[in-house]
Amino acid sequence: MPKVAILLAEGFEELEAVAPIDALRRAGVEVVIAGLTPDPVASARNVKIVPDTTIEELKPEELDMVILPGGAGGVEKLKQDQRVEALIKAMQEKKKLIGAICAAPTALAKFGVLQGKKATVYPSLVEEIKPATYVDQPVVEDENIVTSQGPGTALEFGLKLVERLVGKEKAREVARRMLARYE
Amino acid sequence: MPKVAILLAEGFEELEAVAPIDALRRAGVEVVIAGLTPDPVASARNVKIVPDTTIEELKPEELDMVILPGGAGGVEKLKQDQRVEALIKAMQEKKKLIGAICAAPTALAKFGVLQGKKATVYPSLVEEIKPATYVDQPVVEDENIVTSQGPGTALEFGLKLVERLVGKEKAREVARRMLARYE
Repeated sequence: MPKVAILLAEGFEELEAVAPIDALRRAGVEVVIAGLTPDPVASARNVKIVPDTTIEELKPEELDMVILPGGAGGVEKLKQDQRVEALIKAMQEKKKLIGAICAAPTALAKFGVLQGKKATVYPSLVEEIKPATYVDQPVVEDENIVTSQGPGTALEFGLKLVERLVGKEKAREVARRMLARYE
Repeated sequence: MPKVAILLAEGFEELEAVAPIDALRRAGVEVVIAGLTPDPVASARNVKIVPDTTIEELKPEELDMVILPGGAGGVEKLKQDQRVEALIKAMQEKKKLIGAICAAPTALAKFGVLQGKKATVYPSLVEEIKPATYVDQPVVEDENIVTSQGPGTALEFGLKLVERLVGKEKAREVARRMLARYE
């Protein structure tokens, strides 16, 4: 089964983390919740999640995808963290999947992996994903980069990641059980 | 501002807890995440959330609403817990708001607060909310009881709870910022 890491920094948007984790784990994907430190990570609205591991323990060669949730405070911390930048660049080098939602595509822009790409982002942050071409859709795919817009699109984002990692049939099954919209 | 408790038992459905917490806290509602014990509570898909407090510390007279998330394993534990039953009955006695989603309306039925009510539930559990009248809608309100169907309806459920506690205008504003569907 594919293996995915989702990176939590203090101030992450809770729904944008939990919806993809929920959908992916239902699909049988191994999801590792990685904190920047081993402590519980407080979300933007102070939901404290105990990470499974820390970013130091992640081995990019073992990962099929890395996901960055949004939340302005959390994304600012991801942007400033050289371990996050190195991990994203390692994924990009192998053209492995990278997912980012809400404010998080701005971190991908900062790390230099959005050149020549179509992408989406929280609508007020369109300027901050340049040089990517902004597409006003809930979820946008361009090769290995999957981006999404915000909390209200987080479950659709999660289901798209299931589709990319396991296939449409599994995504459809997970969506049906979750009573979620999908295709 | 209104004060709400959401009860987490091991095996709770993570999205059904986090979506209402997110929407309500964005609306300025005080949300207390209460575990059955003080330890981090593992969700159905093993997302470990550190509770703010335990059910012992909750005072029903200080609460405007109690929310029960779904997840079959978590709901089974809620049903067996006499403190949960006493709290729900105390809320019902004062006609205070009670919210339940997915499998959780079956706990309300067991506690005897669904007599003569319209309610919804995860569709495969329709028989288990009798004597309530099942309504096949994402969110159903009947006086002080608000029920919803599953993970895919959790954000709509959360926004309805914002509407009930703070008003439609605030629910509309929160939905707009979350890029969520609302009315």
